[in-house]
Amino acid sequence: MAFVETLTITDVASGLSDRRTGLLRLMGLAREDRVTDLAITYKDRLTRFGFGYLEQFFTGYGVRIHIVDGQEDKKSLQQELVDDLISIVTSFSGKLYGLRSHGKARELVSAVKGVVSDAGELPDQGS
Amino acid sequence: MAFVETLTITDVASGLSDRRTGLLRLMGLAREDRVTDLAITYKDRLTRFGFGYLEQFFTGYGVRIHIVDGQEDKKSLQQELVDDLISIVTSFSGKLYGLRSHGKARELVSAVKGVVSDAGELPDQGS
Repeated sequence: MAFVETLTITDVASGLSDRRTGLLRLMGLAREDRVTDLAITYKDRLTRFGFGYLEQFFTGYGVRIHIVDGQEDKKSLQQELVDDLISIVTSFSGKLYGLRSHGKARELVSAVKGVVSDAGELPDQGS
Repeated sequence: MAFVETLTITDVASGLSDRRTGLLRLMGLAREDRVTDLAITYKDRLTRFGFGYLEQFFTGYGVRIHIVDGQEDKKSLQQELVDDLISIVTSFSGKLYGLRSHGKARELVSAVKGVVSDAGELPDQGS
C-alpha cells in the first residue's frame, strides 16, 4: 500500500476507554470523509472491547481498516492486559457490591491481583 | 414521546458481544435512515463496553438514543454482571497465560468465582 497523505494519531490511554481524544478525532475525520484507510498498530490498543462497533462505524464512512499487530513490545502488551483486567474487576466490583460492601469489592480485586501479580514473570508468548 | 411506528428488537446474548443479530439489524436500519429514535431498556444490555462508540455510530445517522433503565429485575441484572465478569476473566486469562499455563488461567478464574459465587445473596441495590 502507498498513501498520498498520512496522519499519525496516538492516544495515551487504555483501550478500555471509549472517549479517547485521538479516537474521537479520528471518528470525526471519518465522518467528514477525510480518511480512506486506517492502519492500527495493535487491535487491542484501538479498543479492548467493541471492535465490531468501530468496524461498523468506519466502514459506514467507507474507511478500510488494516490491522498491523506487530510482534514487538509483548511485555508491555501483557502489562496492559493485566492493568485493564484489574480496572474491569474494580469497576465490576463496585457495581456488584456497591457502597454497602467495600470489603467484598476489595476481596474480589485482591483475589485477582494475587493471581496476576507475577505478570512480570509471564512467559514470552511472542512465538 | 409518541412514535408513529415502533419496532421492538430483542437479543438473547450478553452485552459483551458486539456481533449480536438484533444489534446488527438495528445498525443496518440506522444506516438506511429508517430509525429516528432508539429506546434502550438497560444500557448495559445494549453493550457492556463501548457505549460511546454506539453513540457515535447512531448520532452519525441522526438517531437519538433514549435510555429507560428500569428498576425491576435487579437480581438478573446482577447475575448478568457476574456472568459477564467471569467471561471476561476467562478470556483475559487465556490471553495472559495462553496454552502454556492452563493451571494459572484456571487459578485466576476460580479466584474470581470463589469471591462472586455468593451472588445469589447480594444485597438488593434497587434503592
